Amino acid sequence: MTSPLLTRIDHVGIAVRDLDASIGFYESTFGLTVAGRETNDAQGVREAMLYVADCIPRGGSAAGPPGASYVQLLEPLSDETPVGKFLASRGEGVHHIGYGVADVTSALEQLRADGIRLVDEQPRHGSLGASIAFLHPKSVGGVLTELVQAAAT
Amino acid sequence: MTSPLLTRIDHVGIAVRDLDASIGFYESTFGLTVAGRETNDAQGVREAMLYVADCIPRGGSAAGPPGASYVQLLEPLSDETPVGKFLASRGEGVHHIGYGVADVTSALEQLRADGIRLVDEQPRHGSLGASIAFLHPKSVGGVLTELVQAAAT
Repeated sequence: MTSPLLTRIDHVGIAVRDLDASIGFYESTFGLTVAGRETNDAQGVREAMLYVADCIPRGGSAAGPPGASYVQLLEPLSDETPVGKFLASRGEGVHHIGYGVADVTSALEQLRADGIRLVDEQPRHGSLGASIAFLHPKSVGGVLTELVQAAAT
Repeated sequence: MTSPLLTRIDHVGIAVRDLDASIGFYESTFGLTVAGRETNDAQGVREAMLYVADCIPRGGSAAGPPGASYVQLLEPLSDETPVGKFLASRGEGVHHIGYGVADVTSALEQLRADGIRLVDEQPRHGSLGASIAFLHPKSVGGVLTELVQAAAT
């Protein structure tokens, strides 16, 4: 058996109107804690990653690096950003799913060869120092899907 | 610090039109493997759980039981079911997020006391023998949220 391409559910990306209020809700109601906050101008968001759990890929460490799962809360920097447009058309809710991969560059090569439509042809900077790339939802059953190679620790 | 209520991202629940085709996609493209398939008449779905990773809650085993993360693929049994209506209005995509909890009954009590609107006042049967309950998306920032107490192993 070859190793699975996806090594964990890295995060659930949730579009919110008010980042501070949403952080407060996930902290007070669900007991989650903020792992990091940042502004990503390229993606047009202010965001926070809230730590949920530590994860080990199926098949153990031979199948890929361990990592963590997060709730990612995304507030758009303006109405013209992708998350801003999502909020306008759909309202608050799940915007995308991020999965861990061992190597985002080789994962993109494999998926391109499989005919998967890519949003990002090359990796770019994601949360918490990760290298990330998005796959087009039309190729993934309507799910905007992000690949996440976590920063080396 | 008290233990977090949510101990892992248990699963991402994805509404699909063709369960077999979607399973094939997640197997061949992403390397995931089916952990279980079942029909849940009460929820009006045929479904499969595809294993992604093993997870340990923040704070370690003292904070709650270990568990696993899955991709859950949901095909409606008819157009009149909740997932059937979701597909008709939104198309394929993320339907809900399931989070692990140590004890779903006590979690529901705590959330009810916090004023969170519940879909399920009492736990019911979920995938892989779990006890589950849904929270109303209006109380969770537009996210249909499921609590999952995994079956004792």
